[in-house]
Amino acid sequence: MELRKVTAIIRKDALKPVEKILQDMGVTGISVTQVKGYGEYADTYTKDWLVTHARIEIFTSAEKAEPIAEAVMGAAHTGCEGDGIIAILPVLKLYRIRSRAPASPDEV
Amino acid sequence: MELRKVTAIIRKDALKPVEKILQDMGVTGISVTQVKGYGEYADTYTKDWLVTHARIEIFTSAEKAEPIAEAVMGAAHTGCEGDGIIAILPVLKLYRIRSRAPASPDEV
Amino acid sequence: MELRKVTAIIRKDALKPVEKILQDMGVTGISVTQVKGYGEYADTYTKDWLVTHARIEIFTSAEKAEPIAEAVMGAAHTGCEGDGIIAILPVLKLYRIRSRAPASPDEV
Repeated sequence: MELRKVTAIIRKDALKPVEKILQDMGVTGISVTQVKGYGEYADTYTKDWLVTHARIEIFTSAEKAEPIAEAVMGAAHTGCEGDGIIAILPVLKLYRIRSRAPASPDEV
Repeated sequence: MELRKVTAIIRKDALKPVEKILQDMGVTGISVTQVKGYGEYADTYTKDWLVTHARIEIFTSAEKAEPIAEAVMGAAHTGCEGDGIIAILPVLKLYRIRSRAPASPDEV
Repeated sequence: MELRKVTAIIRKDALKPVEKILQDMGVTGISVTQVKGYGEYADTYTKDWLVTHARIEIFTSAEKAEPIAEAVMGAAHTGCEGDGIIAILPVLKLYRIRSRAPASPDEV
């Protein structure tokens, strides 16, 4: 089983709808962190031009990575600058700590 | 030298024993962030079903990645849902800023 | 177009000069998070030997990854322990949520 990491950096406002769609798709695990950054849109009114976004990380199978990216784009898209980005990275191994074993195909 | 990134998402309670075992193994650097997420276990009592875990990132050599994953699994395992996951990702280059040079094999 | 993720873990003091040089280079997007960690330098005066650093993540093209790493090293280097590290990881796909399309070469 080929594995992927999907990283999405989205508007904080988009977090709830994105979480909702991922749960509806049966995505079994996500991690969320708050990040500061600048992208196409830089908030020139803040001292350091940085705006706050949410970063979501999902470890999944190669087959599900693109559908997840599409779903996140659908839920997080406004068409304005600052919508964020999604990256898909290769993952070599994925272990589930509870079972001390590699994650099985139906788990990711 | 082939390089890897080991990412472990573990219970916050497991952070101290995991840090301890990594230091005992001679792991020379780790980064820790707090993440919110949901996995096998979703805390239905919180407003947004998200639980807080710790994420540890370690940049290391390919040979040490599996022993590090095993050690983290050993220290973070409870057998219950919510134990978390460990992922191993490929890394192409690793630089040490102090020396402005690639990290040497004995450093990672 | 081959894609990369550049992750730099630097002193918090180095964040401003690093952001400055990246903007001057035309880097169109960065994400910043605060991380705790230990590396070559462990602050033995804190309870848990962890020091706080800034982590910068940049998604870019393969050609720009090395120049970005060089620039970050130049701006973040003090020559002392605790300067941090820079890693370059492979990225398979990069989407811009605003356009719901893969990022174009001149955007990364």
